[in-house]
Amino acid sequence: MTFVFRNLEMLMTSNHASVVSMNLFVALLCACIVIGHLLEENRWMNESITALAIGLCTGFVILLTSGGKSSHILVFSEDLFFIYLLPPIIFNAGFQVKKKQFFRNFITIMLFGAIGTIISWVIISLGVTQFFRRLDIGSLDIGDYLAIGAIFSATDSVCTLQVLNQDETPLLYSLVFGEGVVNDATSVVLFNAIQSFDLTNVDPTIAFHFIGNFLYLFSMSTLLGVLTGLLSAYIIKKLYIGRHSTDREVALMMLMAYLSYMMAELFYLSGILTVFFCGIVMSHYTWHNVTENSRTTTKHAFATLSFVAEIFIFVYVGMDALDIEKWKFANDSPGTSVAVSSILLGMILVGRAAFVFPLSFLSNLAKKTPNEKISFKQQVTIWWAGLMRGAVSMALAYNKFTSSGHTHLRGNAIMITSTITVVLFSTFVFGLLTKPLVRFLLPLKQSGSAVSSDPGTPKSITMPLLGGGLDSELDLGVTHANNLRLLLTTPTHTVHRFWRMFDDSFMRPVFGGRGFVPYNPGSPAEPNGE
Amino acid sequence: MTFVFRNLEMLMTSNHASVVSMNLFVALLCACIVIGHLLEENRWMNESITALAIGLCTGFVILLTSGGKSSHILVFSEDLFFIYLLPPIIFNAGFQVKKKQFFRNFITIMLFGAIGTIISWVIISLGVTQFFRRLDIGSLDIGDYLAIGAIFSATDSVCTLQVLNQDETPLLYSLVFGEGVVNDATSVVLFNAIQSFDLTNVDPTIAFHFIGNFLYLFSMSTLLGVLTGLLSAYIIKKLYIGRHSTDREVALMMLMAYLSYMMAELFYLSGILTVFFCGIVMSHYTWHNVTENSRTTTKHAFATLSFVAEIFIFVYVGMDALDIEKWKFANDSPGTSVAVSSILLGMILVGRAAFVFPLSFLSNLAKKTPNEKISFKQQVTIWWAGLMRGAVSMALAYNKFTSSGHTHLRGNAIMITSTITVVLFSTFVFGLLTKPLVRFLLPLKQSGSAVSSDPGTPKSITMPLLGGGLDSELDLGVTHANNLRLLLTTPTHTVHRFWRMFDDSFMRPVFGGRGFVPYNPGSPAEPNGE
Repeated sequence: MTFVFRNLEMLMTSNHASVVSMNLFVALLCACIVIGHLLEENRWMNESITALAIGLCTGFVILLTSGGKSSHILVFSEDLFFIYLLPPIIFNAGFQVKKKQFFRNFITIMLFGAIGTIISWVIISLGVTQFFRRLDIGSLDIGDYLAIGAIFSATDSVCTLQVLNQDETPLLYSLVFGEGVVNDATSVVLFNAIQSFDLTNVDPTIAFHFIGNFLYLFSMSTLLGVLTGLLSAYIIKKLYIGRHSTDREVALMMLMAYLSYMMAELFYLSGILTVFFCGIVMSHYTWHNVTENSRTTTKHAFATLSFVAEIFIFVYVGMDALDIEKWKFANDSPGTSVAVSSILLGMILVGRAAFVFPLSFLSNLAKKTPNEKISFKQQVTIWWAGLMRGAVSMALAYNKFTSSGHTHLRGNAIMITSTITVVLFSTFVFGLLTKPLVRFLLPLKQSGSAVSSDPGTPKSITMPLLGGGLDSELDLGVTHANNLRLLLTTPTHTVHRFWRMFDDSFMRPVFGGRGFVPYNPGSPAEPNGE
Repeated sequence: MTFVFRNLEMLMTSNHASVVSMNLFVALLCACIVIGHLLEENRWMNESITALAIGLCTGFVILLTSGGKSSHILVFSEDLFFIYLLPPIIFNAGFQVKKKQFFRNFITIMLFGAIGTIISWVIISLGVTQFFRRLDIGSLDIGDYLAIGAIFSATDSVCTLQVLNQDETPLLYSLVFGEGVVNDATSVVLFNAIQSFDLTNVDPTIAFHFIGNFLYLFSMSTLLGVLTGLLSAYIIKKLYIGRHSTDREVALMMLMAYLSYMMAELFYLSGILTVFFCGIVMSHYTWHNVTENSRTTTKHAFATLSFVAEIFIFVYVGMDALDIEKWKFANDSPGTSVAVSSILLGMILVGRAAFVFPLSFLSNLAKKTPNEKISFKQQVTIWWAGLMRGAVSMALAYNKFTSSGHTHLRGNAIMITSTITVVLFSTFVFGLLTKPLVRFLLPLKQSGSAVSSDPGTPKSITMPLLGGGLDSELDLGVTHANNLRLLLTTPTHTVHRFWRMFDDSFMRPVFGGRGFVPYNPGSPAEPNGE
């Protein structure tokens, strides 16, 4: 039981070198924020690319000063990433997501996020199995190939979000963003499933085991997140903690969000999914039960933590990319490395195309109005926006192909360097081209469905997609006759309607939510309300 | 350079036991917040005592379930404490302190915090040297005795603050609080000085070295904190970062505050003093340069981080108190342990009395109006409120008397158990009695100087101490004639006046501050403005 902190102690024994490296790292993070701000207006750059570039430069300087020994001031740990950096990012994603958009497009998002990721995984795994056999890259077995598929199916939602704008392109944003979260979870679940299953003797029942395992993880993780979120709402509503202290409310929300993630880890579930749904429930119920000050604080504090964690990851990935040790093996056969990276990039392009276009077609079949359909240009944007690979891929690759951050076998070393190459190339090249691409496709979109009605306020932008004011903040007291008429609209709307009725009659009296505390409900202080 | 994170990696290798203990600890923190809230109205309890009690109970349960092997789920590390838990507490202290009160009483606070701590240190060191020689507690040399003096001179400002109320007793609060911060810094500086000086051959020059070292540390640490704070104000004012993102502003403030602490550690200065003054400067300049949302967020987010860190410390101290290993030696000779603890408690009482009453007398000599003098009952309260010993004492004792958290020598083991006894006893007994004591002395005070004029708003409570509205928010544009008249009041007021003129003419045009951004200056959203 004393494991973590006994090590923390070893970790922190007043070593002056560690103080130097912490100083340097914190200073770099500050530099990233300032430079990222200065480059804000630039049409090519975004914060991820800035942080990555700063990391690369610093790595280069450290490489020179240390005489070519090391390029980074810290060793990457997938656990540092999964336990400290990822939870705030994903929780904030759930907390800030426009819930109406998310649930309106829930089926499409699940199609892309779960089925799409599995399609991409199969294609990448099959592709690398075919191509890598012809290259001389050491011993990789079927488990390795499947793991590679999972590693390169994990899109970098962090980088994507900085390119797309929730207000300008709400449909695209919610699709790409929602897909990103489900995709993260799916890749990690897939990856862990591959690691734990015995893949030497594959038989037909394994697929069923696998699907069962996946569904179990998905449903239980979601349930745990929802329950923790509801518990926090109930506690804060019952005790009305803000009466005494805003800080206590904020602390409780933070701790319970983190607790949901750790509990998921405790029960071997997907912490990413749990904390994402915990974030959604907290923003729907808990957030409305706290004081005005707590609302502002939580909204911005969670966003800030997420922001810092993102920058941290990108600075690190940039620094780590120049690590000499990893490139030793790759240097022996530069042709092989280039070939492996190119194959991987190609498979990523093909794997993503193979699900975005067919699934968009399927999704469009179910939609009735042309406004709700995903146009071809939007499909291209969705395809392109999910091509970047980032920290999740890095973390999984490190987990799979290294022991304690070091590369020993030739095959493993090449896979690590290829992962770094793919991450750098996709983030820089695909990432730099995304903003111009969206701008190129956007003018057509802007005159189309989403932003036409009222571009003045963020809230009303979502209105055209809601069937003319349906489910807006103002219809809490609609009449029964009105209800009946509305039930005759599209099925998604009906489901949403029933949920609203259930929410208003059962959930809100118990767990609070919008309108619970009479702190001017509907004031401009609640712009991300729902 | 890779030291910290290489170990972080070892630390976090997905060990399931560590996940269990993290879950338990986070759940305990949540429980503390909820129970602390429920006990808010109780006239005896406060959050520290609640957290300590919960820690003790949990430690007892763990002791039973683990079969008497261990009582805690993590090993205490003074570096975990000094690098992660203390900085947010002290920064928040500087950030939230009522600056006018603090600087008005600056000389008294410095008297208590620096000279008082040194007096207390001398008396405790001399006392234990005399008494401990008669007890059989193993080999302790002069360095150990001096270290014991420093360890038990560190008051627990965290616990104290929860008992005194900034609005009810502003003078007492600012004195005890200000003293606490300077005291923390002084004790740590003293302790480090003792550790680094060669005390085997004491000669007269050592005292001068010591004083020189102390003054150097004090001035350089303050300067570093002020400069970092000013830099953050300048960056945010120049770039006006909030135009794009509130999160970026908040992140920059957090990171630069932490950077100031780490830079102080880098240059072997006192991080506590640095981060405290950085907090003061940030709340005076930087806080006014950011957007309304960032102000609310930083104010509450920093307070929340500090709050969680405090609870963390107390839960841990409670758990750790039952650790079996430490009590083995003490069990051999329970009489000695009790004697040592009693002597220490006695010396703490005497040591504090020996500077509070004389220094209050000195301070009163310089004050002209009876309102500003410290009455005898207030002196008793100041004396009593600083008797508690807490996490700083624990951290220093662990640093001195253990290697890697374990106790080997008999003398060291007894010192550790005695420290725990003193911390528990002083927090429970002195802590529980403080609230009733303040209530007993307060009714007299309330009809006296501080709270008489306008108890409605927190801001106006400080007015009587400011010489009738002098230097209030409203006199930014006073006339020159008015200035001259005001210069004829007490010297402290004059110094403050000159500072205001300098601040308005030179500092604010460069670094911003109140009134820089035209976001309704003087709105009720800025209650802790100055």
